[in-house]
Amino acid sequence: MKAFSIQPVSKQALERAWSRLDRLTKPPRSLGRLEELAARIAAIQGTDRPALGPGAVVVAAADHGVAWEEGVSAYPPEVTYQMVQNFLAGGAAINQIASSADARVYVLDVGVRGPEFPDAPGLVKARVRAGTGNLAKEPAMSPAEAEAALLAGYQAGKRAIEGGATLLAAGDMGIGNTTAAAALTAALLGLPAEAVTGRGTGVDDATYRRKVEVVERALSRAAERLGDLAGAEPLAVAAELGGLELLAAAGVFLAGAEAGVPVVTDGFPVTAGALLATRIAPEVGDYLFAGHRSVEPGHARQLEALGLFPVLDLGLRLGEGTGAVLAFPVLRAAAAMLSGMATFEEAGVSEG
Amino acid sequence: MKAFSIQPVSKQALERAWSRLDRLTKPPRSLGRLEELAARIAAIQGTDRPALGPGAVVVAAADHGVAWEEGVSAYPPEVTYQMVQNFLAGGAAINQIASSADARVYVLDVGVRGPEFPDAPGLVKARVRAGTGNLAKEPAMSPAEAEAALLAGYQAGKRAIEGGATLLAAGDMGIGNTTAAAALTAALLGLPAEAVTGRGTGVDDATYRRKVEVVERALSRAAERLGDLAGAEPLAVAAELGGLELLAAAGVFLAGAEAGVPVVTDGFPVTAGALLATRIAPEVGDYLFAGHRSVEPGHARQLEALGLFPVLDLGLRLGEGTGAVLAFPVLRAAAAMLSGMATFEEAGVSEG
Repeated sequence: MKAFSIQPVSKQALERAWSRLDRLTKPPRSLGRLEELAARIAAIQGTDRPALGPGAVVVAAADHGVAWEEGVSAYPPEVTYQMVQNFLAGGAAINQIASSADARVYVLDVGVRGPEFPDAPGLVKARVRAGTGNLAKEPAMSPAEAEAALLAGYQAGKRAIEGGATLLAAGDMGIGNTTAAAALTAALLGLPAEAVTGRGTGVDDATYRRKVEVVERALSRAAERLGDLAGAEPLAVAAELGGLELLAAAGVFLAGAEAGVPVVTDGFPVTAGALLATRIAPEVGDYLFAGHRSVEPGHARQLEALGLFPVLDLGLRLGEGTGAVLAFPVLRAAAAMLSGMATFEEAGVSEG
Repeated sequence: MKAFSIQPVSKQALERAWSRLDRLTKPPRSLGRLEELAARIAAIQGTDRPALGPGAVVVAAADHGVAWEEGVSAYPPEVTYQMVQNFLAGGAAINQIASSADARVYVLDVGVRGPEFPDAPGLVKARVRAGTGNLAKEPAMSPAEAEAALLAGYQAGKRAIEGGATLLAAGDMGIGNTTAAAALTAALLGLPAEAVTGRGTGVDDATYRRKVEVVERALSRAAERLGDLAGAEPLAVAAELGGLELLAAAGVFLAGAEAGVPVVTDGFPVTAGALLATRIAPEVGDYLFAGHRSVEPGHARQLEALGLFPVLDLGLRLGEGTGAVLAFPVLRAAAAMLSGMATFEEAGVSEG
C-alpha cells in the first residue's frame, strides 16, 4: 500500500487567522461559520491571507454487482454507463453547477460496466474491473483491486490539481452505490444497517426493506472474514463492501490533502469515501469540508463522525459532486473575507 | 405615495420549469431546494431557460436616535459613519464577499449623522435626515420622510439594475437598527417585543433587557397614535418605528420586483424592509429570496411570515447584505442547472 505524505496544517496560521478575524471590521464572530471556514483554509494554506481560485471535481463512476443482482435501486444499472456519457457531453447537473462555480469536471471511469468510452476531454480511464461483485454474496473486489481503485482516484485528483485546481471535490456516479456506502459506513462506524440505509435515488418500501437486508447480509459476510469491522484494516473492509468509486473518492481526498488543497465532500457515497480516507490517513480530516448535508439519513452520521458541519442544507440527494461544488463559492468568499477586509485600526472604526 | 407597477410572475413559465425539471437527467426532485429556486427564477424571467449574470447589493446606511439616546447597541453610534467610509474604501466584509460573488456594491446614505461624504464610486447620496428620532419617545420620522427614504432605496435599486445587475440584494448599516427592526417586525406581524428582539451585534444582558423595554415603549407609543399596528397603513407604521435604511431596503426590493429582477433579502433589519415591501405591494413576495437565516431570533419569524426558506444557515449576524450576496452563486447555479441540463430523452438515459 502506497504511503501518503500529508503535512499537518499550520496551527500558527490558524491562530493568526483567528487573531486577524477578531480584529476585522465586524463584531467578533458575527460571520459565524464563514469565519470557521476562513480560519481552516488559512491553516491549510499556512497563511492568514488565504486565497482560492479555480476548482475541480472528480466524478468517479463505477457499477455495482448488487444493483444487477439484487434490485436495490429505482434505476436500471445501465444508467451508470449512460450518465457517464451524459457527463462527457456536458448534460448533467454537475456540468452546469461546476460551470457556474468555476470548477472543471473530470470523469473517472474506475469501474463502469460496458464498452470502453472513447477519449474525451476530462475523461480519465482507469477501469479496475467492470463493476463490483455482489457484496451480499461475495467480496466487492479483491484487496489489490481496492488499492488500484484508491490509486485511480488519487491520480485523478493529482491531475486535477496539476490542471490548476485550488479546491477539489469528489463526486460519484454508480447505480446501487448508496447500498455499498451504507455497508461501508455501518462497518467503519460500527452502526447497524438500518441506521445508515436510506432511500437513495428514491426506492419504494419493498425495495427499501430489501436494501436494508442486503446491507445486513453484506456486513455479516464481511464480519465472518475480517472479524470486528470497525477495528479491521480499512482497505480490507472497503474491498469487501466496495464500491470502486467510493475508494476512488477516498483517493481524491488523499491527493488533495497531500497537495495542500482543501477537499470538499458531497453526499452519502462520497462521504463514505471521505471516512475511509481519514481511516487511512487521519490528517486528511484537517483538509476536509462538507459541501452540504443530504437527505440520506446516514449522511448526518458520517458528518458527525468527521466533525464537519455542512455549508449547505438544501435537501439534495443527487450526488455527482453537486452539493460539494455548490459550496465552492462560499469557501472562496470565506478566504476573500479574511484576506481582504480591513482591521478596525486600518479603517479607523471604533471598537465596541 | 408612488404606485409601483409590479407584474405577476409567469405561472406558465413556472409550470414549464417544473415539467422540464422533472425530465432532466436526475431523479425527480433530487436537487431539493435548488429546484425550487430554479423554478421561481424561471417564473420571474418568464422562461424555462432562465439565466442570471452580474449582481448588485445596495447597502443602505442610516443612524438611529435610539442608539444615541438609549444605549441599545454594543457599538458607539459613530460607527455607522465610519463603516460607510470603510464600505467606500473597500475594507468591509460586504466588499470582499460581493467581489467574490460577481456583485457590485452601492452604498446609499439615506440618513447617516455626520458631514456629507465626498463623492466616491458606488456612493449614492440621498440623506433624508441625519438619523431618526428616538422611537421610544417620538416618531422615528415623518410620513413624508418615510416615503422619501423608501424612494431613495427604490432609485438606488433602479440605478443598480441600469448598471447591469440581474440579481439584487439589499444590505444595511445602522448602529441600533436591530431595535428599529424589532419594533417594525413586531408591529407588522402583531408579535410581542420579546419574540423578535435579539442580541444584535452582541449586547450584554442588561442592554438586552433595556432593548426589549425600548421596543415595548415604541410599540405602545405608536399604537396610541395609529391604533392596531398590524392593521394600520404600513408606511405610517414604518414612519413611527423606522429606520430610514429599513425603508430604503423596502424600496430596493420594490425596484427589483418592478424591473423583473430576483431580489434577495439578508438578515433581520433588511428583512423587516422586505416585510414592509410586501405590505406595500404583495407581488414583491414572488420576486423575493432569502439569502440566509441569521441567529437573530426574529429573523426566522420574518422568513416564516414571508414563506421563504433560507439558502444558507451559517450563523451570520453581521448584516451589510453579506448573507444575501453569499447566496448569489447558488441562485445562479440553480438557473444554470435548469437551463443547461439535458433531458432523459436528449441524453439517451433510461428513466427509473
